[in-house]
Amino acid sequence: MYVRNAWYVAGWASEFGDALKRVTVLEEHLVMYRVDADTVVALEDRCPHRLMPLSQGKRIGNDIQCGYHGMTFNCEGTCVRVPGQDNVPSSAYVTKYPVRQKNNIVFVWMGESDKADEALIFDMPEFNAPTYHVHQGDALHLQANYLNVAENLVDPAHVSFVHPTTLGNAASENVPVHVDTQGEVLVAWRWIRDSEPVGFFQKFGGFSGNVDRWHYYYLHLPSIAVIDFGSAAVEQQLAEEEREQGVRIFALHFLTPVNKHYTIDRWMHIRNAALNDEQASEQMDAMFRIAFDEDKAILEAIEQQEQLPQKRKPIRLAIDKGPTVYRRRIRDLAELEATEDLGEPVRPTFVHHE
Amino acid sequence: MYVRNAWYVAGWASEFGDALKRVTVLEEHLVMYRVDADTVVALEDRCPHRLMPLSQGKRIGNDIQCGYHGMTFNCEGTCVRVPGQDNVPSSAYVTKYPVRQKNNIVFVWMGESDKADEALIFDMPEFNAPTYHVHQGDALHLQANYLNVAENLVDPAHVSFVHPTTLGNAASENVPVHVDTQGEVLVAWRWIRDSEPVGFFQKFGGFSGNVDRWHYYYLHLPSIAVIDFGSAAVEQQLAEEEREQGVRIFALHFLTPVNKHYTIDRWMHIRNAALNDEQASEQMDAMFRIAFDEDKAILEAIEQQEQLPQKRKPIRLAIDKGPTVYRRRIRDLAELEATEDLGEPVRPTFVHHE
Amino acid sequence: MYVRNAWYVAGWASEFGDALKRVTVLEEHLVMYRVDADTVVALEDRCPHRLMPLSQGKRIGNDIQCGYHGMTFNCEGTCVRVPGQDNVPSSAYVTKYPVRQKNNIVFVWMGESDKADEALIFDMPEFNAPTYHVHQGDALHLQANYLNVAENLVDPAHVSFVHPTTLGNAASENVPVHVDTQGEVLVAWRWIRDSEPVGFFQKFGGFSGNVDRWHYYYLHLPSIAVIDFGSAAVEQQLAEEEREQGVRIFALHFLTPVNKHYTIDRWMHIRNAALNDEQASEQMDAMFRIAFDEDKAILEAIEQQEQLPQKRKPIRLAIDKGPTVYRRRIRDLAELEATEDLGEPVRPTFVHHE
Repeated sequence: MYVRNAWYVAGWASEFGDALKRVTVLEEHLVMYRVDADTVVALEDRCPHRLMPLSQGKRIGNDIQCGYHGMTFNCEGTCVRVPGQDNVPSSAYVTKYPVRQKNNIVFVWMGESDKADEALIFDMPEFNAPTYHVHQGDALHLQANYLNVAENLVDPAHVSFVHPTTLGNAASENVPVHVDTQGEVLVAWRWIRDSEPVGFFQKFGGFSGNVDRWHYYYLHLPSIAVIDFGSAAVEQQLAEEEREQGVRIFALHFLTPVNKHYTIDRWMHIRNAALNDEQASEQMDAMFRIAFDEDKAILEAIEQQEQLPQKRKPIRLAIDKGPTVYRRRIRDLAELEATEDLGEPVRPTFVHHE
Repeated sequence: MYVRNAWYVAGWASEFGDALKRVTVLEEHLVMYRVDADTVVALEDRCPHRLMPLSQGKRIGNDIQCGYHGMTFNCEGTCVRVPGQDNVPSSAYVTKYPVRQKNNIVFVWMGESDKADEALIFDMPEFNAPTYHVHQGDALHLQANYLNVAENLVDPAHVSFVHPTTLGNAASENVPVHVDTQGEVLVAWRWIRDSEPVGFFQKFGGFSGNVDRWHYYYLHLPSIAVIDFGSAAVEQQLAEEEREQGVRIFALHFLTPVNKHYTIDRWMHIRNAALNDEQASEQMDAMFRIAFDEDKAILEAIEQQEQLPQKRKPIRLAIDKGPTVYRRRIRDLAELEATEDLGEPVRPTFVHHE
Repeated sequence: MYVRNAWYVAGWASEFGDALKRVTVLEEHLVMYRVDADTVVALEDRCPHRLMPLSQGKRIGNDIQCGYHGMTFNCEGTCVRVPGQDNVPSSAYVTKYPVRQKNNIVFVWMGESDKADEALIFDMPEFNAPTYHVHQGDALHLQANYLNVAENLVDPAHVSFVHPTTLGNAASENVPVHVDTQGEVLVAWRWIRDSEPVGFFQKFGGFSGNVDRWHYYYLHLPSIAVIDFGSAAVEQQLAEEEREQGVRIFALHFLTPVNKHYTIDRWMHIRNAALNDEQASEQMDAMFRIAFDEDKAILEAIEQQEQLPQKRKPIRLAIDKGPTVYRRRIRDLAELEATEDLGEPVRPTFVHHE
């Protein structure tokens, strides 16, 4: 179940250079390559002649020559040469996918080209704010469906049990979760007031006593999550809208659904502490890796279980509000795409009444 | 094709301790753990919430806490905690399987709980007889259906060809096989009179001349085999019912059908010679390993062949009486389970008229 | 899609000795063994009793004894012994396949036995001509359907793009391809006049100036290809029928379709230069290995692509005449075999009108 009319992340900008690179998104193989500092091209990775992947061909200027019989395509996907004949049949083309590079991230549009609106590309002001430090992390490869991965990213409740040494602790086990929708985004959050700092903020916050701690999980449908988490000394008596004044970290997750059982999660972080301190960035990466590997173990185990015959239907709990709303909305969007020719892209604007 | 109303071996008693352990029987995943010296618990290894295997969770006293969101189950399978909410829905349970430990072996009942009769658990008096030595061997993992493995254990005829250096020799190649049913058990047997001792009894019997040799294959349906084999000097003129007076070894095989293509054969032996001689036990293990690896090679080759398209139906021979009766009975039992709600467990009592 | 009434190559003569060997052709498993210098036997590799592969049994004289229960078959496939009983049921046989050894190559007939005509076995006079040197090369294993492999062997156009350092160069990129049928054989060819010698003839031809170069691809349906390629100095002004006077190499490819996704290509060469020079043979092998590994990379990539869902149908180009005619003819032959009981083997005689 995929939403096609959306911008998906194909990779960090640094992953694309002169070489032809195969990238797989929503089960489609693309050949991608950089043509200038701001521009990356994505074409269908399949010669229309004998189905040879063009990514195994040869780049000639900005064109690609197929490695089998030399059919050549420009970066619009138009065939410009068929060796052994003069005419070029009109059926000799490959599909071109809209691509944009923004904030050093390469996005590709997997739906109808004419609906590829740049304004829909994910952004947030902290990418370019002087009080924040932006750091691209790594790519986590999961043998799991992206819906399960995304649900995990709008689910504050798992943190206490899955990440006890880094992002959570026992103090939050029974704290209820709030859920709402804000325009195009689903948000689930909770505050844990007056408790010991978790591992992450013991290390990076420099707190000596108890803290107020927050987790806000913003899920930009279909597949981008921003987790705003942080802590402030209890004495600050921080209001919900004053998080800026605490130690605050945004963990960003860009999910690329490769196929039904495989998802890439490219993650990065943006913080208002330890600016320009690359050692801190690396230490944070190390802590995130511990936490995300814990998620990976769970999500891959669940993937295996889901493929077994099920005697009983799974149950839903109070803590599942975020995941439940998310999955319903994805189902609605996929159904809308499959049944109507809409005048404009379906935006994930939806209202959730608790 | 499985018989569900039966006690299957989940493992030797020594395989179960404090740790949570996943065990798979008849394609069902169980989480098992020991609660005291005599008691092992088996629960469905699947949290009813997000399907997480409970075996990857955390043991808290005799309860299990799921590793994803902390739902907690006691050793009856009842949910005792749902973090984030006060009420515990009645659908929040996992199935409990009846388990019994007997003769240092852990048995699990895979069928309807109310039919789990302890009296049906496999036993034999030699487990506790002072004139016998009991030795648990090893677990043989076979990529083969359990029906083929079980047939091999009620088939004296293969021994001459498959195990020429250990359990058989050419003298038995043409000796006919007898088959009968004794209460709940199928038995196939033959005597080879006045011939050279086979490898096993050359090594352990201390015979200088020819011997009378026997093989009795008892198959306790659906999946436990006892092979009573032994030798006596020809001069003893041993009668069939006097096997006790020869050198006698029982090889026991407890088959665990993991799935359609995978069976675990836990084997052990009980003997009336070399009592308390652990070196002899190890030497016997070594010889059995040679023989059982020969069976494994054959059974795995057959498994592959059976998955190919078959142009002709296989043929049955005179030596196949045991396997043929066995397979028919299993089919009957499985059909009975699938079609009727019987008042009591189906016991494999059947009569075979040759 | 297989043509069954045909001689397929089971191996080089040197691959068959006393030992029992499993060989798989058209998804059928055969057990093969040599009975004298000129004779190799092929039987169905499946005991009719418990399906055990006979190739894992024991050779006794020219008979095979099954490794499970000792059923024994002679080299006609007739059962000559059933241990444990006196009568041998008539259904106790295995299929025998016609086999012939010719030019040190072992051929097996996979169709109806009574149509196995020796006159249809592939041959060419150069195998036994004093002016030619015959050298058996190697076996290339491809994870690819044999139809794609065969198409590659009647496709001169790919050489310029796939084998630029050995068999082709840019001079031939736009030279058109001719196609015709000659009796039972499909031929595709082209001449590239007055151009630089390709890598192969730079090394083995000793040419100092430009050459006339030819490629003739003969495809003997269903699965044997002979590529006649060579070069002559431009000054010779060689006519098409005078190729004998140039430096000429026949590359022979014997394709064995193992299953739908796996083909073995046994290749060898016959040349009119460097006679009896084994060092030259080895150097040619090395160059061929480079070229054939290039083909393998392409054919395996295509195999993967073909297994994906296809949104658009592939296109055919002017250079595809050979492959197109080949595939149609195979389809015709397979359909004829499947629908009629012909009085004589279907020979691949067909006329192609361009």
